[in-house]
Amino acid sequence: MSASLSIAAPAVASATSLAHRYRQVRQRTMLLCQPLLPEDTVVQPMIDVSPPKWHLAHVTWFFETFLLKAYLPGYTVYHAEYAFLFNSYYNSLGSRVNRADRGTLSRPALADVYSYRAHIDEQMARLLELADTLPDDFQELFELGLQHEQQHQELLATDIKYILSTSPLAPAYLPALAPATPTAAPAVAWLPVPGGVSRIGYEGSGFCFDNEQAPHDVLTPDFELQNRLVTNGEYLAFMEAGGYQDFRYWLGEGWDLVQTQSWEAPLYWTLHEGQWHRFTHHGLQPVNMAAPVTHISFYEADAYAHWAGARLPTEPEWEVAARYFEATPTHGTFLESNLLDPQPLPPDADPTRCHQLLGDAWEWTYSAYHPYPGYVRAAGALGEYNGKFMINQLVLRGGSCATPVSHIRLTYRNFFHADKRWQFTGIRLAR
Amino acid sequence: MSASLSIAAPAVASATSLAHRYRQVRQRTMLLCQPLLPEDTVVQPMIDVSPPKWHLAHVTWFFETFLLKAYLPGYTVYHAEYAFLFNSYYNSLGSRVNRADRGTLSRPALADVYSYRAHIDEQMARLLELADTLPDDFQELFELGLQHEQQHQELLATDIKYILSTSPLAPAYLPALAPATPTAAPAVAWLPVPGGVSRIGYEGSGFCFDNEQAPHDVLTPDFELQNRLVTNGEYLAFMEAGGYQDFRYWLGEGWDLVQTQSWEAPLYWTLHEGQWHRFTHHGLQPVNMAAPVTHISFYEADAYAHWAGARLPTEPEWEVAARYFEATPTHGTFLESNLLDPQPLPPDADPTRCHQLLGDAWEWTYSAYHPYPGYVRAAGALGEYNGKFMINQLVLRGGSCATPVSHIRLTYRNFFHADKRWQFTGIRLAR
Amino acid sequence: MSASLSIAAPAVASATSLAHRYRQVRQRTMLLCQPLLPEDTVVQPMIDVSPPKWHLAHVTWFFETFLLKAYLPGYTVYHAEYAFLFNSYYNSLGSRVNRADRGTLSRPALADVYSYRAHIDEQMARLLELADTLPDDFQELFELGLQHEQQHQELLATDIKYILSTSPLAPAYLPALAPATPTAAPAVAWLPVPGGVSRIGYEGSGFCFDNEQAPHDVLTPDFELQNRLVTNGEYLAFMEAGGYQDFRYWLGEGWDLVQTQSWEAPLYWTLHEGQWHRFTHHGLQPVNMAAPVTHISFYEADAYAHWAGARLPTEPEWEVAARYFEATPTHGTFLESNLLDPQPLPPDADPTRCHQLLGDAWEWTYSAYHPYPGYVRAAGALGEYNGKFMINQLVLRGGSCATPVSHIRLTYRNFFHADKRWQFTGIRLAR
Amino acid sequence: MSASLSIAAPAVASATSLAHRYRQVRQRTMLLCQPLLPEDTVVQPMIDVSPPKWHLAHVTWFFETFLLKAYLPGYTVYHAEYAFLFNSYYNSLGSRVNRADRGTLSRPALADVYSYRAHIDEQMARLLELADTLPDDFQELFELGLQHEQQHQELLATDIKYILSTSPLAPAYLPALAPATPTAAPAVAWLPVPGGVSRIGYEGSGFCFDNEQAPHDVLTPDFELQNRLVTNGEYLAFMEAGGYQDFRYWLGEGWDLVQTQSWEAPLYWTLHEGQWHRFTHHGLQPVNMAAPVTHISFYEADAYAHWAGARLPTEPEWEVAARYFEATPTHGTFLESNLLDPQPLPPDADPTRCHQLLGDAWEWTYSAYHPYPGYVRAAGALGEYNGKFMINQLVLRGGSCATPVSHIRLTYRNFFHADKRWQFTGIRLAR
Repeated sequence: MSASLSIAAPAVASATSLAHRYRQVRQRTMLLCQPLLPEDTVVQPMIDVSPPKWHLAHVTWFFETFLLKAYLPGYTVYHAEYAFLFNSYYNSLGSRVNRADRGTLSRPALADVYSYRAHIDEQMARLLELADTLPDDFQELFELGLQHEQQHQELLATDIKYILSTSPLAPAYLPALAPATPTAAPAVAWLPVPGGVSRIGYEGSGFCFDNEQAPHDVLTPDFELQNRLVTNGEYLAFMEAGGYQDFRYWLGEGWDLVQTQSWEAPLYWTLHEGQWHRFTHHGLQPVNMAAPVTHISFYEADAYAHWAGARLPTEPEWEVAARYFEATPTHGTFLESNLLDPQPLPPDADPTRCHQLLGDAWEWTYSAYHPYPGYVRAAGALGEYNGKFMINQLVLRGGSCATPVSHIRLTYRNFFHADKRWQFTGIRLAR
Repeated sequence: MSASLSIAAPAVASATSLAHRYRQVRQRTMLLCQPLLPEDTVVQPMIDVSPPKWHLAHVTWFFETFLLKAYLPGYTVYHAEYAFLFNSYYNSLGSRVNRADRGTLSRPALADVYSYRAHIDEQMARLLELADTLPDDFQELFELGLQHEQQHQELLATDIKYILSTSPLAPAYLPALAPATPTAAPAVAWLPVPGGVSRIGYEGSGFCFDNEQAPHDVLTPDFELQNRLVTNGEYLAFMEAGGYQDFRYWLGEGWDLVQTQSWEAPLYWTLHEGQWHRFTHHGLQPVNMAAPVTHISFYEADAYAHWAGARLPTEPEWEVAARYFEATPTHGTFLESNLLDPQPLPPDADPTRCHQLLGDAWEWTYSAYHPYPGYVRAAGALGEYNGKFMINQLVLRGGSCATPVSHIRLTYRNFFHADKRWQFTGIRLAR
Repeated sequence: MSASLSIAAPAVASATSLAHRYRQVRQRTMLLCQPLLPEDTVVQPMIDVSPPKWHLAHVTWFFETFLLKAYLPGYTVYHAEYAFLFNSYYNSLGSRVNRADRGTLSRPALADVYSYRAHIDEQMARLLELADTLPDDFQELFELGLQHEQQHQELLATDIKYILSTSPLAPAYLPALAPATPTAAPAVAWLPVPGGVSRIGYEGSGFCFDNEQAPHDVLTPDFELQNRLVTNGEYLAFMEAGGYQDFRYWLGEGWDLVQTQSWEAPLYWTLHEGQWHRFTHHGLQPVNMAAPVTHISFYEADAYAHWAGARLPTEPEWEVAARYFEATPTHGTFLESNLLDPQPLPPDADPTRCHQLLGDAWEWTYSAYHPYPGYVRAAGALGEYNGKFMINQLVLRGGSCATPVSHIRLTYRNFFHADKRWQFTGIRLAR
Repeated sequence: MSASLSIAAPAVASATSLAHRYRQVRQRTMLLCQPLLPEDTVVQPMIDVSPPKWHLAHVTWFFETFLLKAYLPGYTVYHAEYAFLFNSYYNSLGSRVNRADRGTLSRPALADVYSYRAHIDEQMARLLELADTLPDDFQELFELGLQHEQQHQELLATDIKYILSTSPLAPAYLPALAPATPTAAPAVAWLPVPGGVSRIGYEGSGFCFDNEQAPHDVLTPDFELQNRLVTNGEYLAFMEAGGYQDFRYWLGEGWDLVQTQSWEAPLYWTLHEGQWHRFTHHGLQPVNMAAPVTHISFYEADAYAHWAGARLPTEPEWEVAARYFEATPTHGTFLESNLLDPQPLPPDADPTRCHQLLGDAWEWTYSAYHPYPGYVRAAGALGEYNGKFMINQLVLRGGSCATPVSHIRLTYRNFFHADKRWQFTGIRLAR
């Protein structure tokens, strides 16, 4: 990872503020895992989901490997086998547990992983005291370690949801909510976005991932964007109109999945006593028709758009629009709210503004996750961070109710395969 | 399960002795799980292995389903979903968790399963006070429940071993042993067994499984049996002679497995600093050359026998020989010893006697697990206990170091598919 | 393959009679393939089915490899690649085409395979002229080559049926038959067979396969056998009684197949305008209710027997009964009739005799295909002929309408996995 | 398929010229299949390859279904089952043979398929006589039928190559060529292409596929393109530099394939007596180092580019450059040459010009196959022609030595999954 290319240099910070920020991020991870039993932290009910115990250790291994080993004089590795156990995908760093087998390992136990975290936190405190004496690239890697942990906070939230959902007991991770008073979502409006040549990609002086660079010009047409996310109620209309039974709305690979996986609703939806419910972090809840639909694949998003006579935006369109509408995170739902579910707009939300661009649900774009012009994969292990995934995935934008608010940017490029449904993914229509 | 046919009627026992025996068996299960962390009780690293948490609940569900529901007036089910979660394979009793998915369920938690056990134990205590007033078949089903739990004790022991073995940390379930003083196994001798018509199958008045009946005559030839199990040292000679590289010793399906699974030693063997070690309940240990070889598939047992110029005994031969040699469990290693590893014979063991017929290692026979003449599958759920597995499996005899000593009999028919290696399986040669 | 052990020495025959017999067997294979188009000889619609082109070449390769190369002075191999292409499963003879890929090879073309056959036939004629001068084991191997080709004649007949069945055009291999006049099968009778010690296995002076040896004593109980094969009409009664919907009749692995494969009738049965039809070598035909049921797996045979309150015979019982009833091939349907379908008994067939023991349909026994006592696998490539398959298969007895009549014996042991349905397999009940 | 949107209206042609063109295209297909044996036309050695018999019938079924049934009064279907057998993927038109099972069908025979073709050709001749009286959309559909058949001509050429390659006999489809005199490829040069806003997509008045529309503006940067395709010699340098052993050059999914598929060279390359050879339509041939490399996946193209310090062009860049360099098919190798292999440039080719943009090899772009702005999927069966594949595939440009010259255009968008290698795919570098 080259400083000048892939990660914009953050303003230099004091050792004290670094230590403060480190503790803050690390504590958030611990808070997220607090409601879990040791049993919950071991299992891997599908290949995309990692055991929470693994997340807890992997983000820690990242600090140990890229910071302590590199910068703390005399540092000795905590446990010789941990690199094998907690490396995610870095070929540069040797062999590792097969991804599909992460859920077969009961040891090291959760308590051992917490000890590992505590040990690394101590050593990191020691290292941060030396921050002023360290070379320039230290702060960059440090920041990357924190951003990496924030990414795993989002994965923790969504993986925990999936893990708990597999039990027929439908256990609640958070206390059940008081039933929402049914309200209608505000009316849909189409907001025009003028076309032309615009600049996208990260240009500021803070942190960004290498995949947000280089900033470059794009040409977008005149188009219109909907003023809010598609709601559960709207999506239910698609279902009730036979959307899952009519191949004409679907991409071919999507239609195959509808049939082989027997999809007939978003992930986590289930009919309970004749009424649609969703499994949530709060247990099984009736579907709130005014809230944004989530847990849908790109195929479902695209089929819905077809049915609705619209389309999904492209990635350049999304960013151009988000800049045009001056989207801010102020009103979105993020991880810190601990709601872990996208929220309905107030019925009186201003229909002339574009809502929910940041937070609530990741918005599928109809753009492949490919390198930006001028993108250069870094040398060394960190070159494997983003670049090697740039094929067969789609870009999602805007963050979700499981994204830390300090982690999102207008230029942030998230990416998933078109069939994935366990993230908080949603739909924004364009035309 | 019909009383007269499948399970010989045990002598009627007093309510007090029933309660005593119940507590004894149930406590043994708890003892077995005591060294485990909650994390260890959740995972399923391969399809044959069930999570300990599942075993603990399943044997409990058996008492609830077949005894409490049937005989305790006014009994209400502990939890509506537990039948779905903890039914193993009874079609009569409705749908159930896919076997391969047992390791994806973090809930109910281990503590909840222990509460379930405690509740059922209380209710069973109440029921056993009424034992004198219950119909005849009650004691039979009660005994079956205990025998069933003993079967799962053996599975717990072997599944725990497999679960812990998957971690590169090689955690020990029991304290490591002092290194064994190397001794030679006593010399092999071939003991003649006269042929003729003999009776096999259970004829006594105690408990037996339905598959041990009906007793019937078999005709066996004159043959010879080895006086002890094949040792690790003898098996290593086969390995070093290229046994795993020469297809001529192997059944076709076995040879395919050698290649696709890259078998080159028994399960759990690993070369560590140039010396063969085995993963055991005591952690990684050097291979004791005088101890019986275990964790080999039928294919390996048969290939070894070919290489050694001998063969495996048939099931009738084994039982005829065991009766002829008047085998008793006195000298064998069983679960209660808590050694969980087959033991070498003393070097001065009497070479004219046949050793290790009971305990230490299950002995593969070259006989299919098919019904005995006169076998009748019972009506109802218990008819699924044994009969429906009578295809494509081989009979093993004699019990192992993980079998409770009160559970084994000369007529006991165990059965596994030819490729299974995670049980304590061993080799006895015939010719 | 050792002469004394595995194949009984045939009476020494003259060179002329050898040549005559060779031509006869080889021509039968050609006749079988005559109605085929080149296209029919290439495909492999499932792994058990081999392309007819492959059969034609493989049996020829057998003569080339085991006879011409071994006994004809100066013989040079016809084509260097043919051993790779047409070796079936002999590890001793080097690598070979993956079995599942036989149907991907369009070349060598059918015409080339016929040229290969003609060339080998010429060379075999030359070799047979020298027969009197050749060592003793030559005639044995020669006979094995012919018997081997006869085995593949049966496979050709059944594979051709399967191949043609996959086309929705239901092409007929033989001219359609005039519709059978519906007749009732003669009534079922149970014929007693006295128990005791009897001898089974081949003891004569003609040819037998190694797996029919050594002859040995068996002990069978008093039992009864049905006087004829189960008919289509009887099997339909099982179907209509819900046999495929009730797990209680089924072995566990069978019930899994019923569900995953959606079995609801024998292979080749289909409802056509409300009436059951079967695909046959004569195209699609109405099911003849008086004819024996065929194309059923062991699981179906066993489930039918359960439903009927009976059981399948064991292998020793079958052979003891066949000897007791002095079964002969006189009345059975064999390959030479070119009917390629089992035939109904005449309504007035003697109810006191045991019919259809030889010919018409292979009878599933409830005995595993394991070695007889005293069986010794031969050294060299021919040791792979039979012995390496002695696991996880069941013995079938009596030959079928696709077996050459000169190929069957009372001691003949055929074997298939329990799930196979594409052979002419049928049901004989015992109790 | 709506005339105005997806296919530009061709100039109206006379009935005579239509019939002439029809015969020309249809005869080309017959010529392509002439060297084949019936056996070659049946098999499907991998799922992407269809049996030539199937291609021959499928393109014919297309004319029958979309033209004869729609426009010829009183037309009756040739065979009721053919729609099931020869429908490729149109859900609108009912069920069809599973794609992976196309190679299991020996019937209808090749001769029957030729009869089907002859029949449809006769009926088409009758229909074309009425051309002047038919509605406007007839000519469009007719043209689509011809273009569709041309697409299958290319697939026929590549599928035949794959089919013949599976035989160890390495049969030649065309006579072997005289060995090429080794020449060096002309030196590589980087040609600048000025950036800015340009128009891409089809705007003419002839035929185009719906996916080439709507024409629209794109913004491309200043960039450079190589003046010719990458050669075998250059690719061999990558191989010899350890390109297949170093994960750093590869996208993650590509690296997985390298390992699981044991890729170490392009498809069809094999070491023969120490020298690299390629299987070609002319049999096994030494690799010509000056000819363009082909039969490489996108992953290999991208890894090569990484290694070479360059990148692949995007789709807009490719089309902008091809227009800028005024690429024409004049010098390229196309199907009509019957060479079926890309040809080296003459050593004295003008280094200032951009060669081989059309013909020789399809050029992988680093652009996903997604809809153009304004693309609208047509109603009805033809709406399934292109639109439903617009996910997880990459665009290739420029045609190959197996593309009919009358079929290619600068705006033509071909598309394949990133792992496909059996097409004539090649590499053009950009930077």
